[in-house]
Amino acid sequence: MPFDAGTLANPATAALRAYDPGHDLPALRRRFGAAIAELGSNENPLGPSPRALEAMRAALADSWRYPDPRGAALKTALAQRLDVGDDRIALGNGSHELLMLLAQCFADPAHSIVFSQYGFAVFPIATAAAGAQPVRVPALPRGHASAPFGHDLDALAAAVRGDTRIVYLANPNNPTGTWFEDEALARFLARVPRDVLVVVDEAYHEYVDAPGLGSALRFADRHPNLVVTRTFSKAYALAGLRVGYLVAHASVVAVLERLRESFNVNHVALAGAEAALADRDHLASVRAFNGDERAWLREALAARGYAVLPSQTNFLLVDLARDASGFERHLFERGVIVRPMDGYGLGRTVRISIGSRAENQRLLDALP
Amino acid sequence: MPFDAGTLANPATAALRAYDPGHDLPALRRRFGAAIAELGSNENPLGPSPRALEAMRAALADSWRYPDPRGAALKTALAQRLDVGDDRIALGNGSHELLMLLAQCFADPAHSIVFSQYGFAVFPIATAAAGAQPVRVPALPRGHASAPFGHDLDALAAAVRGDTRIVYLANPNNPTGTWFEDEALARFLARVPRDVLVVVDEAYHEYVDAPGLGSALRFADRHPNLVVTRTFSKAYALAGLRVGYLVAHASVVAVLERLRESFNVNHVALAGAEAALADRDHLASVRAFNGDERAWLREALAARGYAVLPSQTNFLLVDLARDASGFERHLFERGVIVRPMDGYGLGRTVRISIGSRAENQRLLDALP
Repeated sequence: MPFDAGTLANPATAALRAYDPGHDLPALRRRFGAAIAELGSNENPLGPSPRALEAMRAALADSWRYPDPRGAALKTALAQRLDVGDDRIALGNGSHELLMLLAQCFADPAHSIVFSQYGFAVFPIATAAAGAQPVRVPALPRGHASAPFGHDLDALAAAVRGDTRIVYLANPNNPTGTWFEDEALARFLARVPRDVLVVVDEAYHEYVDAPGLGSALRFADRHPNLVVTRTFSKAYALAGLRVGYLVAHASVVAVLERLRESFNVNHVALAGAEAALADRDHLASVRAFNGDERAWLREALAARGYAVLPSQTNFLLVDLARDASGFERHLFERGVIVRPMDGYGLGRTVRISIGSRAENQRLLDALP
Repeated sequence: MPFDAGTLANPATAALRAYDPGHDLPALRRRFGAAIAELGSNENPLGPSPRALEAMRAALADSWRYPDPRGAALKTALAQRLDVGDDRIALGNGSHELLMLLAQCFADPAHSIVFSQYGFAVFPIATAAAGAQPVRVPALPRGHASAPFGHDLDALAAAVRGDTRIVYLANPNNPTGTWFEDEALARFLARVPRDVLVVVDEAYHEYVDAPGLGSALRFADRHPNLVVTRTFSKAYALAGLRVGYLVAHASVVAVLERLRESFNVNHVALAGAEAALADRDHLASVRAFNGDERAWLREALAARGYAVLPSQTNFLLVDLARDASGFERHLFERGVIVRPMDGYGLGRTVRISIGSRAENQRLLDALP
């Protein structure tokens, strides 16, 4: 009988599908060169702070050394910025790793994990990897005034069961771009028992400018079961380096430290993130650029008749109200990469990242 | 009642201790500057290939882009070098991540995992993280002629049970430095059923020069249950960047891909590893330097009356035959960092990395 390791995978892993990495971008870059507009991955076209680049160049001299397993310098910088103790921060190889680690440490097949229907893609994967039961809560309806396809916090709170160990929220959410206000989160937290971890992914936090939307961290002191994850991949433009962090009760961090791989965050990423955090001017430029460009692109798309969801992120979700694959292929053939959403069950929408003005204009010119 | 997330950790995680990162090296460097000889982490004092450094500098320009989730260029380079298909290679955030991922994908509380008493420290952690039952097999005795404290392959084969899913071996092994010959592995593989994955960690493979010791890869075609892990952290001197790989049957890789985090290996590491692999001359210099220096340091230590274990790695295990903490403290006070081994249950030994000639000389001068 031919050898097939698929029969040896444990049940949790066997239930998972392999990630679909989408278009082979390195191959497309070789083929199209500069003639390609990559608007599929929510990357920051302004790039990282020059101070981060300089710090990373300097850090290469120590490539042969293991990274600091404590990540002490970056943790201290984050702790000071956020006004929390160093022992309340954990660092990850991207926030992806931290979201996975939370499920792996706190949930097993005896538990359920609650998340929204169109919540961030890592939530169901982390759930399946831990072998936990997914509780997928229907999203707000397409016609909802402020958050179409967004998180239904009332339904999410009602879905918490006796065996629930984690609720994953994303605010703003990828891929919908939608958000809920701080006061709505406060009401949600008041309804959830303290033995359920409420994980709020704030990957797009730095792009936010809506009134009433700040950060879940406001409520951390009152709710020790609250965990906030963030990333240096988006506004800090270090997606290639892989560094994310979370803020939680010290006892949550202590559990994660048991399973965290000691050198999970590489040395160049640690140096780059610390320098990026210190450059507030660069972050302000990124925010301003993204805010302006998001409004401009949204308007331009609307003027061409497209229904664009409200967004507090660096991308727009366009609701085509019909299968989006033809639209995506049309753009692809013109060198414009956007992200089809059928993997999320949103096959009638496409997600378009805010690129440089030149890229955004190319998108507009390429529209069918 | 005060909040304590420790009570919420799942049983597998609750059974784990947090990793002890040892001395705070960044703090020691700030305190001692160049007056410190770091011989505790088996790093390569020659550093990476200049071509790797150049490739990494260039890669920083794309810091804002996500890494290639396929790692296609590095995989292809490895596949060509090792004469296997690209689909037989998986990349990890260090081989540490791959060793953990193997247990997480293939084992659960219904399974046991077999490893040697003084095998690499990640083996019991990966086992505990998966909630699997550890089967720790007594090592060869201290007085063994060729492999004191080393792997007892007969006993390891005999320890495989009906519920065993993985056997972890390391060849050469960290921290003992010991090894077994290819033919001994062949006999071992013949005794282990095909539904048990035999994982051979070859982190130190590039330093090997003993007759009869090549690589487990020789047997990969005959034994589809064989998995070989390697790293760019040691001879390739990219410990700070985090990149390791494994070679396995394509169906093993396909299972791992289900759980692997899509951007687990960062962009700078991918570029550095690919360039490092291409620079065969640099690797040859590293091998030659390490071989010479290992022999020189071993002799110098022996001349001072120390019992040094045979080694095929870039470190030496010194058997003090008494508690080693005083020895380690004595060196530490003189700015020489070596690794105490009590965490391994080898509290009468210390592990000393092969440093630069200046560092090795400092060690000799600082000996009690």
